[in-house]
Amino acid sequence: MAKRTLTGTTLDTIVSLAKRRGFVFQSSEIYGGLSSVWDYGPVGVELKRNVKDAWWKSMVRERDDVVGIDASILMHPDVWVASGHLDSFTDPLVECQECHRRFRQDQIEGDTCPDCGGAFGEPRQFNLMFKTFMGPVEDSSATVYLRPETAQAMFVNFENVQTSSRKKIPFGIAQIGKSFRNEITPGNFTFRTREFEQMEMEFFCEPGTDDDWHDYWMNFSMDWFKKFGIRGEKLMLRVHDADELPHYSKASADVEYEFPWGWGELETISNRTDFDLKAHAEKSGKDLSYFDDQKKERYVPFVVEPAMGADRSALAFLLDAYDEEGEGKDMRVVLRFHPDIAPFQVAVLPLSKKDTLSPTARRVYDLLLANFNAQYDDTQSIGRRYRRQDEIGTPLCVTVDFDTLDDDSVTIRNRDTMEQVRVPIDNLEAAIREQLNTMRADCQG
Amino acid sequence: MAKRTLTGTTLDTIVSLAKRRGFVFQSSEIYGGLSSVWDYGPVGVELKRNVKDAWWKSMVRERDDVVGIDASILMHPDVWVASGHLDSFTDPLVECQECHRRFRQDQIEGDTCPDCGGAFGEPRQFNLMFKTFMGPVEDSSATVYLRPETAQAMFVNFENVQTSSRKKIPFGIAQIGKSFRNEITPGNFTFRTREFEQMEMEFFCEPGTDDDWHDYWMNFSMDWFKKFGIRGEKLMLRVHDADELPHYSKASADVEYEFPWGWGELETISNRTDFDLKAHAEKSGKDLSYFDDQKKERYVPFVVEPAMGADRSALAFLLDAYDEEGEGKDMRVVLRFHPDIAPFQVAVLPLSKKDTLSPTARRVYDLLLANFNAQYDDTQSIGRRYRRQDEIGTPLCVTVDFDTLDDDSVTIRNRDTMEQVRVPIDNLEAAIREQLNTMRADCQG
Repeated sequence: MAKRTLTGTTLDTIVSLAKRRGFVFQSSEIYGGLSSVWDYGPVGVELKRNVKDAWWKSMVRERDDVVGIDASILMHPDVWVASGHLDSFTDPLVECQECHRRFRQDQIEGDTCPDCGGAFGEPRQFNLMFKTFMGPVEDSSATVYLRPETAQAMFVNFENVQTSSRKKIPFGIAQIGKSFRNEITPGNFTFRTREFEQMEMEFFCEPGTDDDWHDYWMNFSMDWFKKFGIRGEKLMLRVHDADELPHYSKASADVEYEFPWGWGELETISNRTDFDLKAHAEKSGKDLSYFDDQKKERYVPFVVEPAMGADRSALAFLLDAYDEEGEGKDMRVVLRFHPDIAPFQVAVLPLSKKDTLSPTARRVYDLLLANFNAQYDDTQSIGRRYRRQDEIGTPLCVTVDFDTLDDDSVTIRNRDTMEQVRVPIDNLEAAIREQLNTMRADCQG
Repeated sequence: MAKRTLTGTTLDTIVSLAKRRGFVFQSSEIYGGLSSVWDYGPVGVELKRNVKDAWWKSMVRERDDVVGIDASILMHPDVWVASGHLDSFTDPLVECQECHRRFRQDQIEGDTCPDCGGAFGEPRQFNLMFKTFMGPVEDSSATVYLRPETAQAMFVNFENVQTSSRKKIPFGIAQIGKSFRNEITPGNFTFRTREFEQMEMEFFCEPGTDDDWHDYWMNFSMDWFKKFGIRGEKLMLRVHDADELPHYSKASADVEYEFPWGWGELETISNRTDFDLKAHAEKSGKDLSYFDDQKKERYVPFVVEPAMGADRSALAFLLDAYDEEGEGKDMRVVLRFHPDIAPFQVAVLPLSKKDTLSPTARRVYDLLLANFNAQYDDTQSIGRRYRRQDEIGTPLCVTVDFDTLDDDSVTIRNRDTMEQVRVPIDNLEAAIREQLNTMRADCQG
């Protein structure tokens, strides 16, 4: 693994870097921002795309026992009746009778309002689903909800997916997409937000094999984060106690990361049993059982679900990559991303902005674009550009200088070793591939 | 271009194929469906990913004058005050005073309800934005909207993006993401839906250069669809008449495709002038002008916007690829997708399910996975599997047969020419690359 000199950093440092370098901005900032909603900037959008693409590749494209879907955010309201969300997806809420501010009861100490000292009224259950109206009439018959999880789409599409793909059990259905939860107390930057993106997979298996598959997917999940560079000592698999389990789950475990504010979950791997398929079969009147033609028997499959947060995983990759070398004004800030996670893999930097170098630098850039996510940067002094590329975690910089015009060679600078090697442009692609592969191996957590 | 024998097909044929082969399912179908909301199945999700990735590559990754963002769907409500959506994003609505059904006034002929013959009341303006409440209190101070377009995020983030990326004008900001419009009369499958995905880019330029850039982006857009295989004769650039232009636009043109129900827009290229930046500057009190350090002058940039629908573009690619050969039970249905748009580029098909072939077929599959989106299929007779791959538009099938065990060679079958060539496994990757490149060239519209 690429050595980090730092073992951790503060959230403020990362929030500041994220804004300065274009990872994450506050949403609608010119209007004072919208509470706990965030936008990904030009560098952050590539980071998050890479996290999602790495997951999709590992989970769907490289496996022939998992297929993908992309379902709508708005679903039939009966879905949330059957799943239990309409009744049970609630937090207990108390309201101050003086100032009318509302708080989560389980996060309040004492009987009086922390803001004004007023007394609280009776607690009530507050549903976390966002509600809206579809069609021109705003009444209860038009009420729909923004999905609070992507998972239910895999259950209600189980039969259509199985029939059209002709997959046999065991197989999984995966999805990446936005979900919405009207959290009373969101926070910690992009960790807990009301709008967020999930990467979920529902793995349908024969009852009795579910415990083994639960083990399998817990290991898969831990390995996935380490493969893409999260340090093993910052990761923990935490098995839920029986009293933590939601109503649909037989067993559950979190992959947790050590954030600056403590351990927090990146992913939950749950054994959801046959709860969801049975609930939807009952509510819809459809038969959602499966005929196993090897065993010649019919059963309702059990489901094991690895459910990952895309935003908090991207945040963990960002935090974990952060490193500092040296001190004071000579300090080098560097993000040691795995090359498949780094927003850009290579930057092409002409030594000067002079017209003599531009055509060659452009030719090198065009050459690299076909195979790598490349950036072209001719905006500042070369020292400041190296510093910028280090701060956004670009593994390799290719510098085009005046000698290039004579020897048709360029210099590759390595983010981690700081070594510079001179390479003919004809060999550049192969040299970059080789250095990236070395960095991939070094990055494994 | 790969020759199509058909010049068009019916929507019913495509809807039926889409369900049978896993392109698109009705959302929440087991609950009777949710009106005009659709889910992408295992094949459709890959098609739509490819459409979006092709756009992102052309628009962001291959250009150094465009950067991306990924902003939230929920934005500060003042955004929609400034943009004019809160006041003006409305359709005129009439309600039948007998049965209380509501209709778009501009789509109703006569004064009486087409359902019950009742009389209509006075028309009123109906806002198309979906409304919800953020936080624990459901009152007007908590009202937020699901964005009706992604574009506004580029305007409110203009300064943060420009500062962090240090881009000089002219440059663009691109985004792919969901938008929501509470259409009174959606329809035509995935063409007009209440939840949809957009691919939009706002190109910021110096006032006076905007007409030239409008021309540039109109040409770019037409070329983009042709490059990825839409037939030129099915595409049209339609310039808007002055009375069609929305309040923010100086000039606008649609890229239209000839759908089974007539011409319909895939993309609109608008000259939005400085309307949006000025409106947000006024509402927020922030200075959103730009200092041009070449010209040493300060101005509010003009904006040219290519705005594409991801779902309707995917639908156009699907319709345009559809072809039939022969008749009756010998008819071959084939989707002649461009190889970069096809859901899968190659399928690995062991001739039989016998264990003797599986290890070799698996080895071939693993080899191809590293470089192509590959499918493994051993479920039915080889004839039915070829037919299925044709119907989902897979350019190449690789068949592993009993001779493979002796000669370590496989057969590549070409979707369009139906030619089969025998290739040593050692040369397979190169042979597939070559055939895909030939098909790319043949597919250009």
